[in-house]
Amino acid sequence: MKLGVCYYPEHWPEQMWAQDATRMRDLGLSLVRIGEFAWSRIEPVRGRFVWDWLDRAINTLADAGLAIVLGTPSATPPRWLIRDAPSILAVGTDGRLRGFGSRRHYCFSSDIYRTEACRIAAAMAERYGRHPAISTWQIDNEYGCHGTVLSYSAAAIAAFRVWLANRYGSIDSLNVAWGNVFWSMEYPDFETIEPPVATVTEANPAHRLDWRRFSSDQVIRFNRAQIEAIRPNAPGAQFVHNTMGFFTDYDHRALARDLDVVGWDSYPLGFLDSFEFPDAEKQQWCRTGHPDIAAFHHDLYRGIGTASFGVMEQQAGPVNWAPHNPAPLSGMVRFWTLEAFAHGADFVAYFRWRQCPFAQEQMHSGLRLPDDRPDIGFDEIASLSDDFARLHAIPSNTRTQRSAVALMFDYESNWLVEIQPHGENFRYRELIFQTYTALRGLGMDVDIIGADAEGTGYRLIVIPCLPILDSSRLDRLRATGAQILFGPRTGSKTAHFAIPDTLAPGDLGTAMGFSIPRVESLRTGVTIGVHGEAIEGAITHWREHACVRTASVAAYTTDGAPALLEAGDFAYLAGWPDAVLLDSVLRRQATRASVPIRQLPTGLRIRRRGDLHFAFNAGPQRVTIPFRENIQFLLGSADLEVAGVAAWIELT
Amino acid sequence: MKLGVCYYPEHWPEQMWAQDATRMRDLGLSLVRIGEFAWSRIEPVRGRFVWDWLDRAINTLADAGLAIVLGTPSATPPRWLIRDAPSILAVGTDGRLRGFGSRRHYCFSSDIYRTEACRIAAAMAERYGRHPAISTWQIDNEYGCHGTVLSYSAAAIAAFRVWLANRYGSIDSLNVAWGNVFWSMEYPDFETIEPPVATVTEANPAHRLDWRRFSSDQVIRFNRAQIEAIRPNAPGAQFVHNTMGFFTDYDHRALARDLDVVGWDSYPLGFLDSFEFPDAEKQQWCRTGHPDIAAFHHDLYRGIGTASFGVMEQQAGPVNWAPHNPAPLSGMVRFWTLEAFAHGADFVAYFRWRQCPFAQEQMHSGLRLPDDRPDIGFDEIASLSDDFARLHAIPSNTRTQRSAVALMFDYESNWLVEIQPHGENFRYRELIFQTYTALRGLGMDVDIIGADAEGTGYRLIVIPCLPILDSSRLDRLRATGAQILFGPRTGSKTAHFAIPDTLAPGDLGTAMGFSIPRVESLRTGVTIGVHGEAIEGAITHWREHACVRTASVAAYTTDGAPALLEAGDFAYLAGWPDAVLLDSVLRRQATRASVPIRQLPTGLRIRRRGDLHFAFNAGPQRVTIPFRENIQFLLGSADLEVAGVAAWIELT
Amino acid sequence: MKLGVCYYPEHWPEQMWAQDATRMRDLGLSLVRIGEFAWSRIEPVRGRFVWDWLDRAINTLADAGLAIVLGTPSATPPRWLIRDAPSILAVGTDGRLRGFGSRRHYCFSSDIYRTEACRIAAAMAERYGRHPAISTWQIDNEYGCHGTVLSYSAAAIAAFRVWLANRYGSIDSLNVAWGNVFWSMEYPDFETIEPPVATVTEANPAHRLDWRRFSSDQVIRFNRAQIEAIRPNAPGAQFVHNTMGFFTDYDHRALARDLDVVGWDSYPLGFLDSFEFPDAEKQQWCRTGHPDIAAFHHDLYRGIGTASFGVMEQQAGPVNWAPHNPAPLSGMVRFWTLEAFAHGADFVAYFRWRQCPFAQEQMHSGLRLPDDRPDIGFDEIASLSDDFARLHAIPSNTRTQRSAVALMFDYESNWLVEIQPHGENFRYRELIFQTYTALRGLGMDVDIIGADAEGTGYRLIVIPCLPILDSSRLDRLRATGAQILFGPRTGSKTAHFAIPDTLAPGDLGTAMGFSIPRVESLRTGVTIGVHGEAIEGAITHWREHACVRTASVAAYTTDGAPALLEAGDFAYLAGWPDAVLLDSVLRRQATRASVPIRQLPTGLRIRRRGDLHFAFNAGPQRVTIPFRENIQFLLGSADLEVAGVAAWIELT
Repeated sequence: MKLGVCYYPEHWPEQMWAQDATRMRDLGLSLVRIGEFAWSRIEPVRGRFVWDWLDRAINTLADAGLAIVLGTPSATPPRWLIRDAPSILAVGTDGRLRGFGSRRHYCFSSDIYRTEACRIAAAMAERYGRHPAISTWQIDNEYGCHGTVLSYSAAAIAAFRVWLANRYGSIDSLNVAWGNVFWSMEYPDFETIEPPVATVTEANPAHRLDWRRFSSDQVIRFNRAQIEAIRPNAPGAQFVHNTMGFFTDYDHRALARDLDVVGWDSYPLGFLDSFEFPDAEKQQWCRTGHPDIAAFHHDLYRGIGTASFGVMEQQAGPVNWAPHNPAPLSGMVRFWTLEAFAHGADFVAYFRWRQCPFAQEQMHSGLRLPDDRPDIGFDEIASLSDDFARLHAIPSNTRTQRSAVALMFDYESNWLVEIQPHGENFRYRELIFQTYTALRGLGMDVDIIGADAEGTGYRLIVIPCLPILDSSRLDRLRATGAQILFGPRTGSKTAHFAIPDTLAPGDLGTAMGFSIPRVESLRTGVTIGVHGEAIEGAITHWREHACVRTASVAAYTTDGAPALLEAGDFAYLAGWPDAVLLDSVLRRQATRASVPIRQLPTGLRIRRRGDLHFAFNAGPQRVTIPFRENIQFLLGSADLEVAGVAAWIELT
Repeated sequence: MKLGVCYYPEHWPEQMWAQDATRMRDLGLSLVRIGEFAWSRIEPVRGRFVWDWLDRAINTLADAGLAIVLGTPSATPPRWLIRDAPSILAVGTDGRLRGFGSRRHYCFSSDIYRTEACRIAAAMAERYGRHPAISTWQIDNEYGCHGTVLSYSAAAIAAFRVWLANRYGSIDSLNVAWGNVFWSMEYPDFETIEPPVATVTEANPAHRLDWRRFSSDQVIRFNRAQIEAIRPNAPGAQFVHNTMGFFTDYDHRALARDLDVVGWDSYPLGFLDSFEFPDAEKQQWCRTGHPDIAAFHHDLYRGIGTASFGVMEQQAGPVNWAPHNPAPLSGMVRFWTLEAFAHGADFVAYFRWRQCPFAQEQMHSGLRLPDDRPDIGFDEIASLSDDFARLHAIPSNTRTQRSAVALMFDYESNWLVEIQPHGENFRYRELIFQTYTALRGLGMDVDIIGADAEGTGYRLIVIPCLPILDSSRLDRLRATGAQILFGPRTGSKTAHFAIPDTLAPGDLGTAMGFSIPRVESLRTGVTIGVHGEAIEGAITHWREHACVRTASVAAYTTDGAPALLEAGDFAYLAGWPDAVLLDSVLRRQATRASVPIRQLPTGLRIRRRGDLHFAFNAGPQRVTIPFRENIQFLLGSADLEVAGVAAWIELT
Repeated sequence: MKLGVCYYPEHWPEQMWAQDATRMRDLGLSLVRIGEFAWSRIEPVRGRFVWDWLDRAINTLADAGLAIVLGTPSATPPRWLIRDAPSILAVGTDGRLRGFGSRRHYCFSSDIYRTEACRIAAAMAERYGRHPAISTWQIDNEYGCHGTVLSYSAAAIAAFRVWLANRYGSIDSLNVAWGNVFWSMEYPDFETIEPPVATVTEANPAHRLDWRRFSSDQVIRFNRAQIEAIRPNAPGAQFVHNTMGFFTDYDHRALARDLDVVGWDSYPLGFLDSFEFPDAEKQQWCRTGHPDIAAFHHDLYRGIGTASFGVMEQQAGPVNWAPHNPAPLSGMVRFWTLEAFAHGADFVAYFRWRQCPFAQEQMHSGLRLPDDRPDIGFDEIASLSDDFARLHAIPSNTRTQRSAVALMFDYESNWLVEIQPHGENFRYRELIFQTYTALRGLGMDVDIIGADAEGTGYRLIVIPCLPILDSSRLDRLRATGAQILFGPRTGSKTAHFAIPDTLAPGDLGTAMGFSIPRVESLRTGVTIGVHGEAIEGAITHWREHACVRTASVAAYTTDGAPALLEAGDFAYLAGWPDAVLLDSVLRRQATRASVPIRQLPTGLRIRRRGDLHFAFNAGPQRVTIPFRENIQFLLGSADLEVAGVAAWIELT
């Protein structure tokens, strides 16, 4: 695994560059990412390109032996461009322009801006496309950050109409597909369709889902255009984009189809404080992050569809952008780096080389302080070469293997549930993450797969919620031969956001022999007990009433109705499980699938990469690894402090 | 009482209509409401009317013996109309158009739209006004839903100026009436008056109150115009509108003056989860609804001023639009139907015949599932014919009698308190509803009356809060001879939202011999004890300081100041009572008025209609009716399960 | 100390004026403020001035021997002026005009409006500038009320660009100063700079800080223009403005440089309920106000830089504008008046003479009720002449002396922390107020000083947070010879909102021998213990990691890192202290500075003015003053009821 860093030569005096480069190399780094916000320095006035400083920066870094990831600067169109073409600005749900003065202010649907972004990308490619040190191009930066996927500009509206015309062919088809007869919402033509915003009450969910699909497609299109602008002048280039944590406004798998590498930006403490964890958990994990935050995303992006994945920005100290910004516990920078390795990452690049003393992110730490002294992360990274030496001391296979268990996470499903949650506490991402946490707490390695994955080779596939499960998806799943656990709302909608003819769960219901004619969303605090053989716990938030000819494995204690149904290799959980129920259901299904279970203490996680086994203790206290026979430790021991990492091989 | 259903033939294949109609009749239904969202199918292009499908739908229903309520489709102006006349859209407080894509997007003040709405109504009347099966016309649908009474469009502003000019004659009169000298707010002419929105701090409350009155008047005017458009071609037609629960943005009594029938839309579970009940109550009653939600509205709309009232849309399963949407407990559809009957309803129409699998309300249940199997409500309704047969087994009077107790509920008072709550926890509707609940928990039947009601024939009149109590209202109340209990803020304002010359409570104070020179609004958690003979409890939210020459029945424990004052038949409660105080005050006043008290266990309610007595148990547990001598049960028995209903006659 | 009242003759029939004036004088009042909202009566139509009523009002008051404070009416531009020049309206962050219909709707940057305000002010000066009874002119009313300092109008944007051009000279200088290279935010020219609003994510903090500085400057400029318009016709006039509590959007010290007198508007109960106190405190002090609310502002405005200060509007009963509006406890009007005297006020004017029965503030009490009977405050004020007679019974010095302790409160620091709080619970004003409360609870008199104060003559200076501490400020502080306690974030920023070259705390760090390379913001609930000799407690919200060559007086219990550092007369607290830690640190520093400590029970406060000592008991219970030897009581005794006041002289 390569280590790297994000670097902004334009922020620092040129005389510092050479020493910076030397220090990077000496620290064991081999990658450096530059350029992604530098448009105003590359092209300070339209058409006047200033390459010399960038030439020198690139050459200085290359001379130190560093491989360079060069970013296109399209996330920050400069002020002169906005002045010349104000229509490229995005528009918010309030109908106002999203103004210049920070970043990501452009609309993905602006043809003018896409042309401009390709122009600067092509110019950079022409200049650097054959530079031997530049192996990889990063397109733009963190698509979707600050809620920027959705834009309501005139350009977006026009593009949406074209997108719909292509999708539906005729306005009559669209009216039927959306069910626009419902409230006299029938459109006379595509030109009268607006985005689903500022309506008196909710807009048609079919309309909203198409708007989300369209908006996601616009991101993909924008990204692809830049790649196509670069490729002619950059033969053999690899393309990467750096995604974020818990951003789901566009389909990352669709993006990945155009990428060679996916990088993601891992800020475990910032994500913890920003995401919807309960306050007690935010306090408990405030200096280590939730034990599954980084791991979940590693597993997600490892399976996203690119040849390679890694961390493009790794938190190495306090960040500046969360509601609260504590410092990582000592050891966590090493912990996160080794964790990324254990989960199969090919690289980890830290963010950023040196804390910038000015502008928005001045309180975001780096590896070095603004006065160029090393910060804490720097010293932890220095210790990593010793760790990696120990890991490789015994020659072993470090190829990431397929896991026995797959968890399905689907972007479109998230949009669908956001559009009509039916109960305000039903959050798709929360259900997925709770399921991931439960699996990992049972000691399992998990692959995260998409809704259209083949799914072959898994023993257990867990699908917490997949509203659109058409027959081709179902056939594919059945063909895997795996034990498959489906969760609530699966199969409950058609591709046009309607209830299937056979009611939920559609074809799955036909296959399993039941239907769900009625669901209930429940206020937090209302629960219903569930009991079955080896099954215990309760549902909360959501309950389904099954009309059934199917074996019931567990039943609701109030009325005896089925809560967990089973038919062949398929099981269906008819509600949102609390932690106890989820644990018992997963244990049962894992046992049926012959997936071994290792119950882990709170905060301990294990993970295998090839022959190497890892344990990570995210706290809150020292733990002892409960299985330690016939193993040889390469790192640490069975006793793990908080932030401690152990690695071992099994003795045969 | 007639039973009926809401039906949307335009949502279903024509071949299903005949069977639907037969099944309705077989279920015991005799009413069917149709048409109110079908504009885009009746007139898909301006001026091109497509009647044939509606002819066939009407005839199919009529052939099955069903009486039809035909709705005008003005709640959903179609897209082509918005395209041709975008100025008909309403404008929100944010100054933005409220767009097409859901429903109720029109502005009540648009002359263009009123003309259009009358045009389609007249066209329908011309076609169907003499159809023998169409006895009743519903105008529009749920005025005010989604906060649509108030609009800030150019049309509304122009109409407001005319309305003010008519009301005040001269701008000087307006300036004096509003007290515009206060902050140099004097207007040079009517043309410079804007709606009270987007001001730096609160606008003049007199200005705001007139805006609310004007906005309410615009609803009445819009409704009346449609009736007048229909009547010439529909001789003998009855006119109905379907109102909602807890909607108070327009004066329903003013609307009722133009109607023959008032229908209301009863969604007990949706209202519970949406209205301002404490979370614990929302959990407790989540499957039955609060025991007084439906009853309160029955009593309100029974007294609204029309010849007939009933439920136009009755929840018959889970709805889709509340924050959480649980299913009714088994038996509740029957419970709600019999409860409506007990409270005097002339009809109950269920919403809707069949769950629609597409668009916004696809998760709103119906009597039949999307695949046309019967849902739970269907089966409960089927059982009702047996219930009604038992009720009518012994010939008896079922005419609804006047209650002994009247509760005053006034729309204008609600606007006034919303405009200047003085304490953010003072909510008019909450005070009214708490009082209703307390009266009903004492076993009383209650009539709900308006501020201008004659009030004759009652023994006890409870007026929880009536800020504008002028001398004509006071004279009318005095003439009733009833015991009258007034609550806080009564008489505290003039018609122009000013303090009366004699201070609060104005003429009432003169009559009773006290004034209220000072009030306090209190943060939740601050309470003051109250004690008197047979009076115990505390006030919260609001305390008044009376300057008094009047007998004090109960006093504040902190300073001995009067809390409950009395003079002749009038009593005045100088604060917002907690539940204990409210109960003891109502018991005392009921006793003075010779109104019998029957203390009921939690969740049990009783109600008389003619000779028939009913008991309803909304839970949370099985109860035994505590008075059961000399009665003969027609339905159920003295032991009532949750959701259980009993009915009896008294043996003489 | 003079007593006075705010009076609005235009609200009342002229026949009441003479009696009002007589009653004022009889009550012991000698000051009356009028005119500040009367524009529409002085100039009902452009250019037509109506002076006669105001002539008579002024003469009636003057004839009764009252000195008049005459207000310019610029806070309420009338409707005809808005009609003629709509561009004078302010614009909100949402881009919408802040409309006519309440008050303060003008934009400070409008040249048109500044000219208009000067025109009316000059006209009034021409008429009344030499009137013998008019000694003082109040300019406008409560600058900043309702969030009106910041405006985003075209006029403001244009003025901002000019302001920036003056400040930076060239756009390159600005780009460097702000660090605009960071996200390609470099501006091609001043004309392309917009206010920092509606950006996708946060705008550059340097940009935002300059916007706040600019906006503050516009208030100062507006105020000065009116003074200059009046002065030529009002020789010898004193100028006053009435500021508010907890308003920090403009720099009050800069304003004070143009004033002779500062008045402030003291509403202790309204402030308590509106400001960010915990709910339990809002309940506890609901009828007395927090014991330090009024005192803090007296101490602030006494030191603001004017020759004289006092209360221009004193709450004398319930107000109307807080979320909840309870009545003051009996005695509190007297308490607040004597407290103002103890803190050095030169006058206290009550708001308002008579409760106005109409318009926005009809529920705001006055000294007299709307029906002209006296309200409670009136009677309390009547008793004050006896109190003042007792205070002056023994001839003594009543000149306010310099306190031994100074607390630094700086407007710019508040803007800076608001712009980048880094942790959402870090609120500058809260930190300052907690420190003030702690000092006062230790029995100390406190002077509040600004960031540029000389600071000479103090023994202890407490600077809870001063991010911009340049070397000139530091030199000035060092020259005082006082013990100085600095709090977190001090010295952490340059004047352009960047991290200093030597890191935080900049020059202070150089002087003391440490730096702060890392800070943490902590979620509420996360605390870290602190321990040292005589130092105990914990930090919360904020922790700093010091890199240190300095003596550590107290350390963090988790890692032994320094929490309280000391070098010579300087001490630095590296975190946000909880109440226990703050108390122990202040005790230690006071002891070192030889400032005597008198621990006071909850709610008791003491204060000296010249030879007079005062004690005030804000509750919640009766207390006994714990030091009472060798003193002679002039008011009250050592036993103080809630709302009780004692005054004594020390016997030598």
